Order: sequence, then C-alpha cells, then structure tokens
Amino acid sequence: MSKLVTPKDLEFLLYQVLDAEQLTRLDNYRDHDRTTFDAILKTSERIAEDFFLPHNAKADQHEPQFDGDKVTTIPEVKQAWQHFAESGLLSARHRYEDGGMQLPSLIHMACNAYFMAANPSTAGYPFLTTAAANVIHAFGSDEQKNTFLAPMFAGRFSGTMALTEPDVGSSLGDLTTKATLQDDGSYRIKGQKMYISGGDQDITENIVHLVLARIEGAPVGVKGISLFIVPKFLTHTDGTLGERNDVKLAGLLHKMGYRGTTSTVLNFGEDDNCQGYLIGEANKGLSYMFKMMNEARIGVGLGGAMIGYRGYLESLDYARNRPQGRSVSNRDPLSKPINIVEHTDVKRMLLAQKSYVEGSLALCLYAARLVDVQESSQDKQQAEDAAVLLDLLTPVVKSFPSYYGPRANDLAIQVLAGAGYTREYPVEQCYRDNRLNPIHEGTHGIQSLDLLGRKMWQHNGKGQQLLMARVQATLNSALQREELKPLAQQYQKHLTTFMQTVMALGQKLQQGEAQLALANSAVFLDMMGKMVIGWLWLEMADKAIQQFSDSQSDEDQTFLAGKLQAAQYFIRWEVGEIHHQAQLLTSFDETCLSMKAEWF
Amino acid sequence: MSKLVTPKDLEFLLYQVLDAEQLTRLDNYRDHDRTTFDAILKTSERIAEDFFLPHNAKADQHEPQFDGDKVTTIPEVKQAWQHFAESGLLSARHRYEDGGMQLPSLIHMACNAYFMAANPSTAGYPFLTTAAANVIHAFGSDEQKNTFLAPMFAGRFSGTMALTEPDVGSSLGDLTTKATLQDDGSYRIKGQKMYISGGDQDITENIVHLVLARIEGAPVGVKGISLFIVPKFLTHTDGTLGERNDVKLAGLLHKMGYRGTTSTVLNFGEDDNCQGYLIGEANKGLSYMFKMMNEARIGVGLGGAMIGYRGYLESLDYARNRPQGRSVSNRDPLSKPINIVEHTDVKRMLLAQKSYVEGSLALCLYAARLVDVQESSQDKQQAEDAAVLLDLLTPVVKSFPSYYGPRANDLAIQVLAGAGYTREYPVEQCYRDNRLNPIHEGTHGIQSLDLLGRKMWQHNGKGQQLLMARVQATLNSALQREELKPLAQQYQKHLTTFMQTVMALGQKLQQGEAQLALANSAVFLDMMGKMVIGWLWLEMADKAIQQFSDSQSDEDQTFLAGKLQAAQYFIRWEVGEIHHQAQLLTSFDETCLSMKAEWF
Repeated sequence: MSKLVTPKDLEFLLYQVLDAEQLTRLDNYRDHDRTTFDAILKTSERIAEDFFLPHNAKADQHEPQFDGDKVTTIPEVKQAWQHFAESGLLSARHRYEDGGMQLPSLIHMACNAYFMAANPSTAGYPFLTTAAANVIHAFGSDEQKNTFLAPMFAGRFSGTMALTEPDVGSSLGDLTTKATLQDDGSYRIKGQKMYISGGDQDITENIVHLVLARIEGAPVGVKGISLFIVPKFLTHTDGTLGERNDVKLAGLLHKMGYRGTTSTVLNFGEDDNCQGYLIGEANKGLSYMFKMMNEARIGVGLGGAMIGYRGYLESLDYARNRPQGRSVSNRDPLSKPINIVEHTDVKRMLLAQKSYVEGSLALCLYAARLVDVQESSQDKQQAEDAAVLLDLLTPVVKSFPSYYGPRANDLAIQVLAGAGYTREYPVEQCYRDNRLNPIHEGTHGIQSLDLLGRKMWQHNGKGQQLLMARVQATLNSALQREELKPLAQQYQKHLTTFMQTVMALGQKLQQGEAQLALANSAVFLDMMGKMVIGWLWLEMADKAIQQFSDSQSDEDQTFLAGKLQAAQYFIRWEVGEIHHQAQLLTSFDETCLSMKAEWF
Repeated sequence: MSKLVTPKDLEFLLYQVLDAEQLTRLDNYRDHDRTTFDAILKTSERIAEDFFLPHNAKADQHEPQFDGDKVTTIPEVKQAWQHFAESGLLSARHRYEDGGMQLPSLIHMACNAYFMAANPSTAGYPFLTTAAANVIHAFGSDEQKNTFLAPMFAGRFSGTMALTEPDVGSSLGDLTTKATLQDDGSYRIKGQKMYISGGDQDITENIVHLVLARIEGAPVGVKGISLFIVPKFLTHTDGTLGERNDVKLAGLLHKMGYRGTTSTVLNFGEDDNCQGYLIGEANKGLSYMFKMMNEARIGVGLGGAMIGYRGYLESLDYARNRPQGRSVSNRDPLSKPINIVEHTDVKRMLLAQKSYVEGSLALCLYAARLVDVQESSQDKQQAEDAAVLLDLLTPVVKSFPSYYGPRANDLAIQVLAGAGYTREYPVEQCYRDNRLNPIHEGTHGIQSLDLLGRKMWQHNGKGQQLLMARVQATLNSALQREELKPLAQQYQKHLTTFMQTVMALGQKLQQGEAQLALANSAVFLDMMGKMVIGWLWLEMADKAIQQFSDSQSDEDQTFLAGKLQAAQYFIRWEVGEIHHQAQLLTSFDETCLSMKAEWF
C-alpha cells in the first residue's frame, strides 16, 4: 500500500465525490479523460515515491548550508527538482500553446498531494515556482512572460514570493522596501526581506523573486504597494543569463521543520544596484500578489492535510503491527497480547486522524474544483458563483487542514508513544514540519479576521448563500438514506446553531460594533471549519453509500464502513463542539477583549 | 523579571493559596519557617538561572554522543549537576539524620519548578536520582541504604528507573528480563531495557539502575515482578567502587526534544555476569516501583507545566515588544503600529497559556502539599484522606499539565509566528521538549483507564467525596463574593453536569459493562482535568480577592485583575467544553469502540 495517500480514498474523492470526469466537458479540458488523469497521477505518485520520499528525512537532518558565499543543499533535492520539471508538472495547468497540459486544478492538486505527503520541503521549490509563474502569466507584460516563463516551466529558474520584512509580517501595509524608477523604465529596489522560502539555493540557474515594494511617492498603507520581478541574475529576453543582480543572501533562518527548504534573509540593493521590473500597474501589487497568495493558501492547506495524512498512515501501520496489552475485559496474563489497533483509545486516535486528514484532503480538492469551474466554465453564472464560494472558503481551506493536520500528527506520535517521539520514526518529523502551516501565508488570527470581518459578508453574503445551498443539497440526500438519517439529523441541528450564530455576528457588525463582533473571530474560524468539514464528511458518507452499498467486494465494504464511521466520528465528536463555541460567540464574550496587557 | 516563574505568582500559590507556613506546625517541619523556605527557593532560582538555563539550548543542539564505548555530554551538564548536588537539594526531603533538610514536598516541588522551567533535560538527572533514592530509602535493606544512599545524595552516583523493554511498554506484566538467584543471595540479571533516561552518561562516578525483572519461576503477569538494584559499577559498602558490572549501553535513542538527557538501550547480562540486588520482597517489585512512578508522574506534570510556563513568559515578552498592525477599528495607515499584545486574538493566546500553566503549577503544588499531609500529619485521618485524594488526583496531575503544557507551547509559537518557528527563539525548543510529557510515565490512554477504571471508585469512592468536599468549600466561599458570584455559579452548573456524568459511568461499571463504560475514558480524563483546574482557578480567584482587593498597590491590583480574568477565561472557555464531553460519555458513544481495525 502507498505510504502517501490511500489509493482508494483518492480515487473515491476524485471520481465519485468530485466527479472529475465531468470537468472534461469544459472546453479547456476536453482533450482529457480519466485515462490521461490517471496517467499524470501515476507519474506524480512514482516521482514522489522514487525521488521525493527517499530523502525526506535526510534533507531534514542535513539542512542547507551557507558558507557566507554560497548555499549548498543535498544533491537529492536538485535531482528531485529535475524529475519534477521533466514531468511537465511545473506548467501542467497552462495552455498547450504555452507548453502546458491544460490539466484541471483538481487533478493538479491531487498530483501535488503526493509530493506534499512525500517531502514537503523539497516540494516547496516547485510549488513556489508554479505560483510565481502563474502571477507573471496573469499580470506580467509580454516581454516579462517571454523572458521568464519558459525557463521557469523548464525548471531552469525557480520562483519565490518576497513579502515579509524584519519589521513587517502580517501588516503588509507597513512595508518599507523602496523602488525607484530608472530612465530605462526599470526600478532600483532597496530593502530587506525575511523568511523568504527558497530565497537562495544551488538547484536552479536563476531565481525569480516577486518582490513587494513601495515606489517613491506612493500612497501610504496597502494602496501604495507595487509588485516587481527581481531576478537573481539579470536575464536576456532569450532566457540566457546576464550579470548577477544586487540581491544578496544575508543569512539562513533555522526552522523547527521544513528544514530542506531554505528560509532566507535577502538584501535587495545593498550596493544600490538591484534591478526590478514592475508587474502590471503601480500600486496594485497587493492585488496581484493575492492571486499568488490565494493559491499559496490553498497549497498550505494541502500541506497541512498531507503531512497529516502521512502521519496517519504511518501510525496506522504501526498500530496494526505492534502487540501490546490486552483488551479491558481480558485479565488472563497468559493470553497473547493484541495489536494496539484493537484498543479503543488507539482507535479513537486513529479515527480522529482519519477524519481530519481525509476531510482536509476533500476540502482542498473541493477548492481546486472550484478553481476549475471559476476559470473554465462556459456558464458565466456558474463561474462567478464558484469564484465567490472559493473566496469565502479560502480562509477555511488554509486554516482547517493547517490546524487539524498538526493535531493529527500529534495523535500519530501518541499512537507510537515513546517510539513516535524518537527521530527513528517519521511521525516525529511530520509533527515538526506541519507546525509551520498554521503560520505562513497568514496566521490563523489573520485568516479569522479575513473570514469573519470580510469574506462572510462580501457580495451581500452571496458566498454564504451558495455554501448553504450546497450543504442543504447534501443534507437532503443524506436524510433520505436509512443508514445516514440519524447522523444527518444531528448535523442539521448543528447547522441551525451555526446559522443563528452567523446571524448574531452579522447583526453586531451591522450595528458598527466591529471590535465586539470580531473579538472571538478565531472561535468562529474553527466553528466554520467544523461545519464545512462536517458537511464534506456527510457528502462522502452519502456518496460512499451510493457507490458501494450494493457491492459484493470486501474491499468496497470495508471502505464504506470506514467512511461511515469517520463521518460519524467527525460529526458527533468534533462538530458537536460547536455549541459551546456558539455560546461564546453569541454572548459576545469579552474575556479576551477586556483583558489588559499589564494584567498578564 | 525572572524568565522562569513569575515571582509573585509562586509566592501567592505557596503562601496564600496553599498556606505553606501552616506546614511548619507539623513535627517534621517544625524547624522551618518562611525564611528557610524562601532561602532554599532563592538558592534554587539562582542555581537554575546561573547553571541550568544558560546551556538549555546548547544541550539541545549538542546531544550526548556515544562512540561505541563512552557517552560524552557537554561539560555544562556536569557542572550544573555538581551545583545542584552541593546545594543539598538531592536529599532535601530526607531527615536530618540522613543528611537531609526535612523540606516539605510543597517547597521542594516549587524548587523543582525553577529547574524544569530552566532546563528540563539537565534537570532530568537529579530528579531521577532523587526518585530512585527515595525507593531505596523506603524499601531497601539497611545494607543497600548504607551502600547507595550517601553517594547518591552527595551527587557521586545517579539513579535511573529501568522498566520498559523493546517489546514491553505500557503492559509491564509482559516483561521478560530475568533474575536468577546466586549462592551469595544476589541475582544474575539478563535482559534488555529501552528508553532508559540517564541510562548512561559521563556525569557521575556510578549509576544505580532500579530494574524490574522476573525471578525464575515467578508467577506470570504483574504479580511476578521484582525490583533490583543494578549498579553500573559494583559498590563496596563504604561507597567505593569495585568492578564494572555487566550493564552495557547498546545505543542512544534520538529524540525530538529533551535531547540533553540521554535516552538509552541497556543490555543487562550480555556476558551472564550482571549482578543485581533484590529490593524488599520478591514479586512485589511493581508496588515498590509505583512509589517511584507516582512521584515521577507528578514530576512529569510539573515538567509539562513549567515548560509551558517558560513558553508563556517568552511569548508574553515578545508580544509586549513586537509592534505590528493596528486595532480592528483603526484604519489610519499613518498611525503607529501597536504592540501585538494589544490584539484581542493575541490576548486570547496569552490568556489561554496563562490559564493552563498557572493552573497546572497550582495543581502540582497542591499535589505536593497532599504528600506533606500524607507523610507528616499527626492527624491520622487527615493523613489518610490526603493519601486517598492524592491517589485519585495523580492521573490528573500527570495528564492535565502534560497535555495543556504543550498546547500552551503551541500557542507561544503562534504568538511569535514565523519567529517562533525558528530555532533562534526558545519557544521552539519548549514545544519539542514538552511533547515527551504526554508519553512517559504512562500515556494519556493509560492514565485515563487508571482514573476511570480504578481511582474513581477505590475506597468506595472516598477520593471523589474528599475532592467534592473541597470543591464545595471553594464554591461556598466564592459564591459569597460579589465579584466572583457569576463565575462561581457557572462553575456550579458545570459541576452538576460532571457529577451526573460520574454517576452514569459508575452505574455502567457496576452493571459489569466495563468495556462500554471505559470506551471513552480519555474524554473523561480531560473532563476531570478541566473540573479540577477550574476549581483551582476559582480557589485562586477567591484567595486573590481575599488578599489583594483592599490593597493600594498597583502591582497587587494588576495581579488580582490578571488572576480574575484568567479564572474567567478558564471556566468560561475551557470548563464550558465539558457539556459536549458529558454528552459523549453519558450516551456511551460507541463510535470508537465499534470501529474495526480493517475499516481504517
């Protein structure tokens, strides 16, 4: 069995729950069919298993080194990069004429799932490159596209996103990196950026930094931020390299996990000679960057989900093979120990993991499918609806998997206990790697304010309505199935509580009491995540019954039973927690708001 | 301000909440007064800050090395050990005639808190030694005591507890290490032990292993386990060293955290020449070991609490000094950023940490005070009550801090965000170190079965009754205070739910349905932890009002306000979660119990 993703689970999600084949009816994807989808999925699995997984632990143990001049990574990283590039995956989502495969986002996300499970650090390089290329493709000039895209797609150049500065993290409006217009139309960039993943390495010929900076005289705050291409080496229009640009690695940061990806401090323009090229219009940089960031946020969600998934499979394997203790009712010390998977509390830990990681993967794939409809549906209304719903769900896609993925890893360690705490077993690294995901691309706190302060009410609450319609459709179907009815009814009860909470929060905001309404936004983010994942579990259970209840195959029956039990676990155990959350939210609990800094 | 423990908090806990001075009325402690207590506390703080804290990160980065022959630790560990030993702390709890200080457990626990916060890895060596010495002191023969105790107290010998084997972790009844009686009354020991902390090192002249083994012909299961002293070097009765015993280090284990403490695989009797000395009677080893283990469990709780406490103080310091963003209502980009401690969601993360770690420390100290009453009260009934209550609370003392301490560290990282994820800030190490605590000395799963399957009902439920009487006393006092009444009423409501749950569980057990009653024991353990810590928060709030409400000092007023707010946070936000837990427990939810291994 694959160590990365349960094959039947992925197949079920793609073809039953999300009906990937239906996408081939869209013009963009009409050359595809299940055979081409499966081929690229197979290729991804093979490359992930052969070239990413084997050095996951080694890259963790042998971090990139900086001698003051050059960065050195272990050679396996470059090898993996090359195999990835040769597969065509870097440009897979682009059009045929741009050298792409016109692969749906849904399938692409599923391909990425293998790499995230196998080796999230090494996967960071191609994923960042893809995201950066997408921004240049969407907003760059023809010259910029001609110059940079082909070498990026070919794997000669990598990409980064350079937002954060030593004094500017979440509050991007305060960034101070400067851009000064030159006679030739280019800009001189000056400033320091921090926590730049892949900001330097010895894997590619060149690195294309997408840098947020402020053009001299630009408005203060977020409205005065522009986006620039700043290559490590100046690049001729034919893609050949020119001189070294004035971008210097000031140092590497040493992280708890994700150690294989360099995390850098970069000095731009130390010698006042850093060339940058404005992307699109001045002062619109943040909106361009958000295209990349929204993709990156879904990518972070996928990372949280898949590192969680990996840990789940590892702990399941351990639990099935580790004999220890006897059942609660067996007091005969001469009887043979049972495998720990038979202990109820171990089942709890495995079931929680299963519900978190399979639910999270479903959510990431669901989001990817929305991207496909948004980008490629010929039905304009459908496309617009998908865009609005995706916008609403993005903070949840970023946050739920990145919070519950690490919790899954925590449980995976607990299943292995002493062994899980040692570096001799992979769950230890999963736990450290996954801890980054609730932080980068916007912390939970930031996501929760985005969700409750903005996304819920955009377009007159259209996103909410679209979501509720889909949830209701799932409920209607589930309520009609004998096996699912009790669970669907429980979910329905929780849904009422959720909607009442949303209404109370909306009213408070309308009354202009933003501070009070948003005080417990983190609680709302978690509640929303539980409702969304609970819905997807109901949907999975519903589709699993539809698909497998008549099957004679043992494999189908155990798969169905597992999905039903995990749905039951998630809705009873996890979604059931929202009533307490609703109570805190609808009473506008001021415990945190009224706390004073000096009282700590 | 101390980086280790908030001085005012510790003072408050010891002298107001737990009335440490009252202990000096007991014969054992009558030579003490607040001055002697404060002196040893001050000494502990100084040694912890000067000799433990400075190499905490270094010991993490430079793990002990094993060259196949010898283990090498960094020299700072030995230096710290020596300062600890010279202070007299290794024997502090023992009688004057044994070279001790007759220090109450309560004060000793508070001393230990400094070391756990400063450097849990290095603190592991003296703490294990103290625990091992206590077992020898309690159950060893005069010859054993004469031979080993003085060198242990002097810091020449260290101690370990060697229970776990490669195939035997939680299920001690299955252990296979053998002991064979020799003509001279000693035993030959043969077997392999694993995860033995401090099992080898270059710090002390000798190491005294307390080894669980099975004498040939002994009954199977836990009733056939005996306890042996197995020194690394044979020891003459005058404490001088003889030949090397046949105990060999097979290898070091490499952990996620706690890296400064060696974790070892030990081979006993590879050359059939390993001498061991039976402690007490044959086949009673497990009950002796449980004396050490119960102490160790409280010690693990303290570790969880204090690593959490350290992270809390670090993240608080960061939040107070890191400017970022503006308040939700301020949209002026020209205004100065505020320090992040002013953001409501950061307050939430700090308040949660404060409530977990100060509550956990209170619980550990409370347990220590029970030890004092149990051991030293002249009132026999009082002593017996304390013993029964301590017995009931031990799984909670072990589990709550070791689960919520790591959660506090998780939040500490989140407060620092990107910075917190790097090894440049100490919260990263706290997070890794603390992950061990939910595992060693009995996992949560084991603790929860111990609590719900045994401790709750022992002595005809006497422990429960004693606990409830104390909770009720706190409630009665709190209900009479204007400022606390609403919170006390909330707690009272939760208490009713808790008691109904206990009753339902008890009935199910009486009906012989152990499997069903114990299926969700982990949920009960968490619920019990919340009730106990909620009670202690109410008690702290009550005592803080009593002590400080009339004070004119700003410092007193902010301390009081902080305690009240944290009590409110814990009871409203955390204890409020028990209703959902009660629902799962009283409905005897079978989701985990009925899950089948093959469905995963």
